[in-house]
Amino acid sequence: MIPKGFEFSAVMAGIKYKDRLDVGLVLCEAPAAAAGVFTRNTVVAAPVVVSRERVKSGFCRAILVNAGNANACTGKQGYEDTLRTTATMAKTLGISPEEILVCSTGVIGAPLPVETMERAMPGLAEALAGDIAPFAKSIMTTDLVEKVSSRRVKIGGVDVVVTGAAKGSGMIKPDMATMLGFVVTDAKVSPKTLQEVLSGAAELSFNRITVDGDTSTNDTLLMLASGLSGAPAVESSPEAMKTFSKAVEEVCRDLARMIVRDGEGATKLVDITVTGAADDRAAKAIAFTIAESPLVKTALHGEDPNWGRIAAALGRSGHFKGGEFGITVGDVPIVKAGAWLGTEAEKAAREIMQGNEFGITVEIFEGEGRATVTTCDFSAGYISINANYRS
Amino acid sequence: MIPKGFEFSAVMAGIKYKDRLDVGLVLCEAPAAAAGVFTRNTVVAAPVVVSRERVKSGFCRAILVNAGNANACTGKQGYEDTLRTTATMAKTLGISPEEILVCSTGVIGAPLPVETMERAMPGLAEALAGDIAPFAKSIMTTDLVEKVSSRRVKIGGVDVVVTGAAKGSGMIKPDMATMLGFVVTDAKVSPKTLQEVLSGAAELSFNRITVDGDTSTNDTLLMLASGLSGAPAVESSPEAMKTFSKAVEEVCRDLARMIVRDGEGATKLVDITVTGAADDRAAKAIAFTIAESPLVKTALHGEDPNWGRIAAALGRSGHFKGGEFGITVGDVPIVKAGAWLGTEAEKAAREIMQGNEFGITVEIFEGEGRATVTTCDFSAGYISINANYRS
Repeated sequence: MIPKGFEFSAVMAGIKYKDRLDVGLVLCEAPAAAAGVFTRNTVVAAPVVVSRERVKSGFCRAILVNAGNANACTGKQGYEDTLRTTATMAKTLGISPEEILVCSTGVIGAPLPVETMERAMPGLAEALAGDIAPFAKSIMTTDLVEKVSSRRVKIGGVDVVVTGAAKGSGMIKPDMATMLGFVVTDAKVSPKTLQEVLSGAAELSFNRITVDGDTSTNDTLLMLASGLSGAPAVESSPEAMKTFSKAVEEVCRDLARMIVRDGEGATKLVDITVTGAADDRAAKAIAFTIAESPLVKTALHGEDPNWGRIAAALGRSGHFKGGEFGITVGDVPIVKAGAWLGTEAEKAAREIMQGNEFGITVEIFEGEGRATVTTCDFSAGYISINANYRS
Repeated sequence: MIPKGFEFSAVMAGIKYKDRLDVGLVLCEAPAAAAGVFTRNTVVAAPVVVSRERVKSGFCRAILVNAGNANACTGKQGYEDTLRTTATMAKTLGISPEEILVCSTGVIGAPLPVETMERAMPGLAEALAGDIAPFAKSIMTTDLVEKVSSRRVKIGGVDVVVTGAAKGSGMIKPDMATMLGFVVTDAKVSPKTLQEVLSGAAELSFNRITVDGDTSTNDTLLMLASGLSGAPAVESSPEAMKTFSKAVEEVCRDLARMIVRDGEGATKLVDITVTGAADDRAAKAIAFTIAESPLVKTALHGEDPNWGRIAAALGRSGHFKGGEFGITVGDVPIVKAGAWLGTEAEKAAREIMQGNEFGITVEIFEGEGRATVTTCDFSAGYISINANYRS
C-alpha cells in the first residue's frame, strides 16, 4: 500500500557491487511534514549531520539513500560530498537541496564515490513509481530479505496509509553498516506531532531490539507525511491521534522485528520480557543485559534453557537487588521464586526453544516495571560474516 | 616457588567428571592475614556469601575449592551445604570452620554433592605438600592450561615470595563457571593492608580483562599471608609497601592475562589502550566498550584492522565527545587526527594482527585519562563451546 503523494525508485549505480540496486529515492509531490530519529553515537556520518539539520525545518520532499558506502569518518570532505550529491539530486528533481534528506550505509572510512552517484540520478528520477519494493531492495547491505510493512487505518472515516521500509541485520558492520528506516504516510499531521509520534514509536520498536549491541554511526529513522489522504488532521481528535500513533508504532515494530529476524547468522527471534522491575526503565535495562549477553545468545543458539546464564546477566544488570526471581520459557516456568523446577521443566522448555520464535520472561519483585526487548541468537554464522575481510 | 608456611593438595572426588582433580585445598600452618575481592553480581553463590563473611575476621587458615558445581542459585540448602563441607573439612584438619574460606565453580543451579566432597577430605588432608601444581589443576573447568605465577622480592633484605593460582576462560559458563584466583605470601602484613593491596591489584588486573563481558555469580579472589618469611612487616617502610604491592600486582596481572589467553575459543590476546580521555575512569569505560564489542572481537579474529568498528564503539561508549581521534595497531598508526591513513597503513597493521599478541591504542584529546583493558578475539570456537548442551 502506497500513501497518496509518494513515489519511489532505485537504480544500480555500481557504488560497491555490480548488478545490485544501490541508490534509492523517495519523493513526495508536495512538501511533507518531516521527522527524524538519529543515532546517539557521538561518531556520526556526514549524512546524519545533514539530515538532522534539514529535518528541523519541519517540511521536506525527498529522501536519497545509497548502500555500499557509509560516508562515515570521512571528515570535511564527506560532509561536502553529501551536500553535493543532494544539490545534484535537487537540480534533477527541480526542488531545493534543503528539501532532500539523505542516508548512507556501507563501508566506513572510504570516500563517497560522488560522481558514480551523480551519474545515477537522471535514471533515478525517471524510474519514480508507486512501488516501494525496488527502493526497499536498494537499501539492503548484509540483509537477506527486504523489509516493508504497511497499515491502513480510518481517520474521520477516511483511509490513511502508513508504509515503511527498513534495512539492517547488525547494528553496524564495517563493510556494510547500519540500521535505516523510512516511514511515509498520507495523514495530515504537523511536523511537531509527527516527531512526537515517530520518537514514541522508535522507543518501542527500533530502540527495543538488539543483534550485537553495537550501534552505528549512521542509524537513521525518517518519516514524511504528505497530508494528501483527505482525512482530518491527526490532531483533530484524541481517537485520531491514538489510531495514527498505533499505526506508526505497528509499522515500526514490524520493521524492527524483521531486522532481528534477519540478524547476521541468526536462527532464532526471541522476546525477552522483564516484569516486576522497579520501573519500566529498569526493566528495559535488565532485558537488554540479558538480550545482549553472548552467553545467553549462544545458549539460545544451542536451544538450551540455560537459566544460570540468565540469572547471571540479571545479577550484573545493575537493576536487580538480588531477591527471588522466576524464569519462564514460552509458557513453561523453569525457575519459580528462585528455585529450580527440575529436569522435566527444562526438557519442556528445550522443546519450545527448538522453534524459531519464542519468548522468555524474567519475573522479579521490586515494582511494576515491565519491558520487552527482541533479540536473536549468536551463531558461528555471525562470526564468519564478521571475521571475514572487508574485500 | 612456595611461600613459607603453605601447603597445597588436590584429589579426584568425582563431582562431575571421573579421573579429574576437582577438589583442592590450601592450608597455612599458622593463622594467616586474609583478604578477598568478590563478584559485584547481585546473584551470588553460597560460597561467596560464606567467604565474604569469614574474610572479615582478618585471619584464616585454609581455602577449600571444588570444580564441577558452582553451588549458585541453590537457595538455603546451598548455603547449608557450604557450611557443612567446611565444617567437615575443619574437623579433618583440626581447625575451626570459620578459618576456612571456600569457593565453588561449575554448573549453576544443581545441588552441591556434599557427601562426594566429604568422602574426598581425608585424602585431601593427607596429600598436603609444598607443590601448588595439583591444586592449580583441580580448580580448572573449561580452562585448557593451569595458571600459576610467582614473584620473589626482598623486604628489609629478606626474601618474600608471592605465589598465585587462578582459573577462568569465560566470565561465566553454565556448565563450568567463573574466575577464581588465590594468592599466598609469607610476607608479614596486616589484614587491612593486605585487603588494600589486593583490591588495588585486582583493579589493575582481574578488573581489566574481558572474555565475553559476562560476570559470574562466583567470581572470587582470595589472599592469605603467613608472615613466616622472617622479613620486616610490609608496613615498616614505604619501599617495602611498594615492593610488596608491585609483586602482588604482577602476580595478579600474570594470572589475569593467562585467563584471557585461555579465553574460550580465543586465538589472540589484545591489549586495548585508551589515552587522552577525560580521566582514567572514562578511559577504562571506553576501553571496555571497545574490548567487549562483538564486532571488534570478530574483526580481531579475522585479523582485520577494521577501525570503523573501533570508532563506532568509541562513539557509543558514552565517554567521548565526538572530536578527533587516532588509532594505532602495534606501532602502526591507521587513523591520525580523525583521518584514515590509507590502505598501505592498513596492510602493515594487518601483518601485526597476524601475531598472537598485540596492542591497539585509541587516542582522544579530552584530558590525561589512560587505561588498558586486555581482551581476546571471538571465534566460532566460542560459539560451539557455549552453544553445546550442558550434558
